[in-house]
Amino acid sequence: MTIFTASTTAPVNIATLKYWGKRDKTLNLPTNSSISVTLAQNDLRTLTSAATSERFDEDQLWLNGKLESLESERTQHCLQDLRDLRAKLEAQNPSLPSMSKWKLHIVSENNFPTAAGLASSAAGFAALVVAISKLYQLPESASEISKIARKGSGSACRSLFGGYVAWEMGTAADGSDSKAVEVAPQDHWPEMKAAILVVSAAKKDTPSTSGMQHTVGTSDLFQERITNVVPKRFEEMKQAIWSRDFAQFAELTMRDSNSFHATCLDSYPPIFYMNDTSRQIVKLCHQINAFFDEVVVAYTFDAGPNAVLYYLQENETKVMAFIHQVFQQNSGWDSKFSKQDLEVFSEYFTTDVAPDMAFDLDLDLHKGVSRVILTQVGPGPQDTTECLIDTTTGIPK
Amino acid sequence: MTIFTASTTAPVNIATLKYWGKRDKTLNLPTNSSISVTLAQNDLRTLTSAATSERFDEDQLWLNGKLESLESERTQHCLQDLRDLRAKLEAQNPSLPSMSKWKLHIVSENNFPTAAGLASSAAGFAALVVAISKLYQLPESASEISKIARKGSGSACRSLFGGYVAWEMGTAADGSDSKAVEVAPQDHWPEMKAAILVVSAAKKDTPSTSGMQHTVGTSDLFQERITNVVPKRFEEMKQAIWSRDFAQFAELTMRDSNSFHATCLDSYPPIFYMNDTSRQIVKLCHQINAFFDEVVVAYTFDAGPNAVLYYLQENETKVMAFIHQVFQQNSGWDSKFSKQDLEVFSEYFTTDVAPDMAFDLDLDLHKGVSRVILTQVGPGPQDTTECLIDTTTGIPK
Repeated sequence: MTIFTASTTAPVNIATLKYWGKRDKTLNLPTNSSISVTLAQNDLRTLTSAATSERFDEDQLWLNGKLESLESERTQHCLQDLRDLRAKLEAQNPSLPSMSKWKLHIVSENNFPTAAGLASSAAGFAALVVAISKLYQLPESASEISKIARKGSGSACRSLFGGYVAWEMGTAADGSDSKAVEVAPQDHWPEMKAAILVVSAAKKDTPSTSGMQHTVGTSDLFQERITNVVPKRFEEMKQAIWSRDFAQFAELTMRDSNSFHATCLDSYPPIFYMNDTSRQIVKLCHQINAFFDEVVVAYTFDAGPNAVLYYLQENETKVMAFIHQVFQQNSGWDSKFSKQDLEVFSEYFTTDVAPDMAFDLDLDLHKGVSRVILTQVGPGPQDTTECLIDTTTGIPK
Repeated sequence: MTIFTASTTAPVNIATLKYWGKRDKTLNLPTNSSISVTLAQNDLRTLTSAATSERFDEDQLWLNGKLESLESERTQHCLQDLRDLRAKLEAQNPSLPSMSKWKLHIVSENNFPTAAGLASSAAGFAALVVAISKLYQLPESASEISKIARKGSGSACRSLFGGYVAWEMGTAADGSDSKAVEVAPQDHWPEMKAAILVVSAAKKDTPSTSGMQHTVGTSDLFQERITNVVPKRFEEMKQAIWSRDFAQFAELTMRDSNSFHATCLDSYPPIFYMNDTSRQIVKLCHQINAFFDEVVVAYTFDAGPNAVLYYLQENETKVMAFIHQVFQQNSGWDSKFSKQDLEVFSEYFTTDVAPDMAFDLDLDLHKGVSRVILTQVGPGPQDTTECLIDTTTGIPK
């Protein structure tokens, strides 16, 4: 009996306009629209293979080599929606194998440590939904499929596209208009680079799912953010992306990160995601921009202490002169830069920066950071010939 | 030729509803009303003596033994207002010595290290203004005099009263209705105690004067705070004080501290006053209240990392069981508690708390704290027979 398989990769996306707050917990409908940059998959991606066969006894998921439960309500939502769409196809064309009735085997692997605290659930749910929709040969558009990924993990819907992506919050109660759309493809503004500073957190964060509802329910400033601040910023940020205005894009990104963390602090009891290392990185970025009297770098922080810095290729030496100087003892540099590149950064710092520097670099800052991940804007989910499932046995290779 | 002198003490006040933002920088007119608790002066006070004489050549100020300038616009405002009021008196009664035309010698001393980063300017300007108004025998009420202190340092106006004090922001452009008033005297709710945890700050803070205007000018959430959040809280907090409702008073105090620091974080570039130690103290307070399933302690943070904890005498053992357990290695305990008292706290912790404790105490927290100041609600400016000026020479003793 045949085993049908399909595989895909899906990227991580890092929001520049933050998703924080649900108006519907079951459907993952947000209280505001958000925007993100999709990151390159050679650095951060999930590879997922989906298989189905009449002879499978149960739905099974292997995540990074471990058998995981598929019981969560969110995952069940995704599987049900995909099976419903497949059932429609089968109804229209009875010659199709009735996969909608068969069990699924799903095998998923990340090419980065989930421990790093990077939003892996977004890439994970995006890959899961895309792999199965390919297995089912669903004709729906990426935006349509993004609504299903959204039910798995809100921000996962943005990983359905590459480049610059908006999640339009929508207004419909059933979520039919709450979907991801492309603001601009990767090649519209391919010079966008990202440096992730993985900050070692002493204690575990409040999970974002419960954290955001805590803010919705207790912050006096939250309503102002979602009613007035974010809607304006959403339009401004799309404009900044379309016009490739980095200074504007960067300021909006930094302001929105701060605004989001401000509403966390305004929650009762307050939620803290940034720590002293995060705050010193914020100060460093503003010092770098002040030094060059030009906005060359932006920071953003999700529901954790990790910093994601955005900068343009053309300003790499200016930005890395500082970032490499401070974080050179952290791992992650050699994978992206040659010895020569790194020497250029050091030399630029020594000869062009240091003489005019009006502030002290906090050279202990690297102690709060565990590694540096250097990446850039990237494409959406990709087809792959790699398959993680043995097509004869139906279990992981 | 005679030297006339007058002396007074003035207290420190710690806001429970924060003053953050000026609508007029010259007159120190605030963007919102605020509320504070006046602290006992045996622990924290400024003692100021003012002298005047026809033979003094210039206005002079000795602060903690050092000759300081009186040139600042704010100080000049205070001196001018006081001289104008004195001149009125002299016009009404020509037999009075014409002090309004004479120079002033002012000697001021704090009984606490200004280094501690405790709002000493409030006590300082309150003492300065009160000492001179006594020297001039001005008939004006404390609220009237508070307007003059306000021009020196906004929060100084609240140090004109003891107990529970409100600074009514007022609406007049000339500041004539922006003054301190008594919400309730010390003896209305004398059980209010305070523990100040002096947190060692790595870097210097943004001065509050520039910091608050930076927030006014750049925070998107600030207007919501002053327009809707604070006015409601101002009325609720007065009610909580009048009805001695500690749980309500405490929650409003904690929420307002977080709201104020949230608008600092929402400023661009952001301002950070709390550090990781501050944040751990916030968490500890919420853990203590959760443990007793009762609000027994409140925290508040001014423009710096220091924590001020408020609690009621009746809950001292419950609160100190935790606070002493964590901070016992810091200095400041012996001055307020006997060996027996401290043993009671330790014993209560060991026998009643520890067995049921569902969370881990961060026992390294004391490393971020330099000292503990144990105090309580106290009276307003006090007469004193102590005089810091030699009445024959007119200079500091």
